[in-house]
Amino acid sequence: MKYAILAVLFAALPAQALIKTKLVEYKHGDVVLQGYAAWEDGFKDTRPGVLVVHEWWGQGPYARRRAEQLAKLGYTAFALDMYGKGVYAKDHEEAGKLAGAFFGDRKAMRERALAGLEQLKKLPFVDQGKVAAIGYCFGGTTVLELARAGTDLKGVASFHGNLATPTPTTEKPKASILVLHGADDNFVNPGVPAFIEEMRKSGADWSFVQYGGAVHSFTVPEAGTDTSKGMAYNKEADRRSWETMKSFFEEIFSDKPTK
Amino acid sequence: MKYAILAVLFAALPAQALIKTKLVEYKHGDVVLQGYAAWEDGFKDTRPGVLVVHEWWGQGPYARRRAEQLAKLGYTAFALDMYGKGVYAKDHEEAGKLAGAFFGDRKAMRERALAGLEQLKKLPFVDQGKVAAIGYCFGGTTVLELARAGTDLKGVASFHGNLATPTPTTEKPKASILVLHGADDNFVNPGVPAFIEEMRKSGADWSFVQYGGAVHSFTVPEAGTDTSKGMAYNKEADRRSWETMKSFFEEIFSDKPTK
Repeated sequence: MKYAILAVLFAALPAQALIKTKLVEYKHGDVVLQGYAAWEDGFKDTRPGVLVVHEWWGQGPYARRRAEQLAKLGYTAFALDMYGKGVYAKDHEEAGKLAGAFFGDRKAMRERALAGLEQLKKLPFVDQGKVAAIGYCFGGTTVLELARAGTDLKGVASFHGNLATPTPTTEKPKASILVLHGADDNFVNPGVPAFIEEMRKSGADWSFVQYGGAVHSFTVPEAGTDTSKGMAYNKEADRRSWETMKSFFEEIFSDKPTK
Repeated sequence: MKYAILAVLFAALPAQALIKTKLVEYKHGDVVLQGYAAWEDGFKDTRPGVLVVHEWWGQGPYARRRAEQLAKLGYTAFALDMYGKGVYAKDHEEAGKLAGAFFGDRKAMRERALAGLEQLKKLPFVDQGKVAAIGYCFGGTTVLELARAGTDLKGVASFHGNLATPTPTTEKPKASILVLHGADDNFVNPGVPAFIEEMRKSGADWSFVQYGGAVHSFTVPEAGTDTSKGMAYNKEADRRSWETMKSFFEEIFSDKPTK
């Protein structure tokens, strides 16, 4: 009995906890993009894959760090690129323009994201039947659009993503949907009732979590702590939302042990 | 290094996973009450204590089962009694009357619950600084009233509790608040906006989770699966809300390892 327990415990330990990363150049139509893959080295089995969609700034350190954190959980992660290789906004104005082009064209948003998803699926060790997507702010909207498009994903998790859409789904999404929302996020709040109505009507499998006191960008330390501007880091909400995402993944990838 | 890991792993295993239970008779004023304590036997350290407040039926098999589940997580649990020893409603009408007396008198609700909390704290091995409360339906309302009263609890979790109150708090509750709510719970939904406003204004530490497709009583298997009556079991929402509660406890009791 004790030996059996031991065997289980050792099986649950990583052989090595070494995280490997690489930049991956790829194309969508004529646009050259550059994503960032992160995975745990030293295992032979396939692992669930998680797509990471960046905030409105672009493919940069934040999304890469999240990909690395996912790798440490035992997933193969790919932080896609929505804007183009090396494109990273220098200020809010530029970020607004870059993201705005996709907010205004949901078809383009979905297609650009699907190009990234294809790259994730090409990575070694990705279990093709166990793929999910997470996104932050603009990226949260993007993963919700993937769900609305009926993309074959186990689940999507939106962190402070904008929930409004000109193209709500009327069909049940394949992906389970987890929305992680700051209760005081006044950028997103106006869209909440319509989103919940959309989820209800579509028959989606959805959960919606609100964190008291949290404003927009609550998972982003770089946002600072001054909530008066409507964007700020909230350590508790960051930690809680990440824990909820972990539990969500454990569920949707359930026949595979995760750490 | 390997030995250190082993030591940690064994330390995390229970010496014995034997759950002990007992009925506890106690009084509140002249009313004789009977609660149900559950704890894991075979440890010497103190453990966090969790109060369980029953649904409108009364102290019965459901609340006791939850107390046992909490004991299996390593907590000392006490399912209190709000109504009186042996009082258990035979139908909805009687349940409505029993619960209604407290819904209409929040002072009585708080005091009766505090009498139960006192019993929990008297149990052996309860860490007096690490106490929380959970409740179901009527019991969810009750634990929220404990939080509103400023009770010295690490946290309260309400499962499909009614959120409306005639006595909203204007002061920051000591307890962190976790609300686990069925998005289609039309008994509770009318009170949601005022509750969120109350939480905001009071400065509470609160999270609010909505489960799509879930109606009232979503954690109660005995409620059946016919959602048309507004009360039904929802396996996914049950599982998810329990996981969220576990994660909440791990946080609020954080300097103590839990299983």
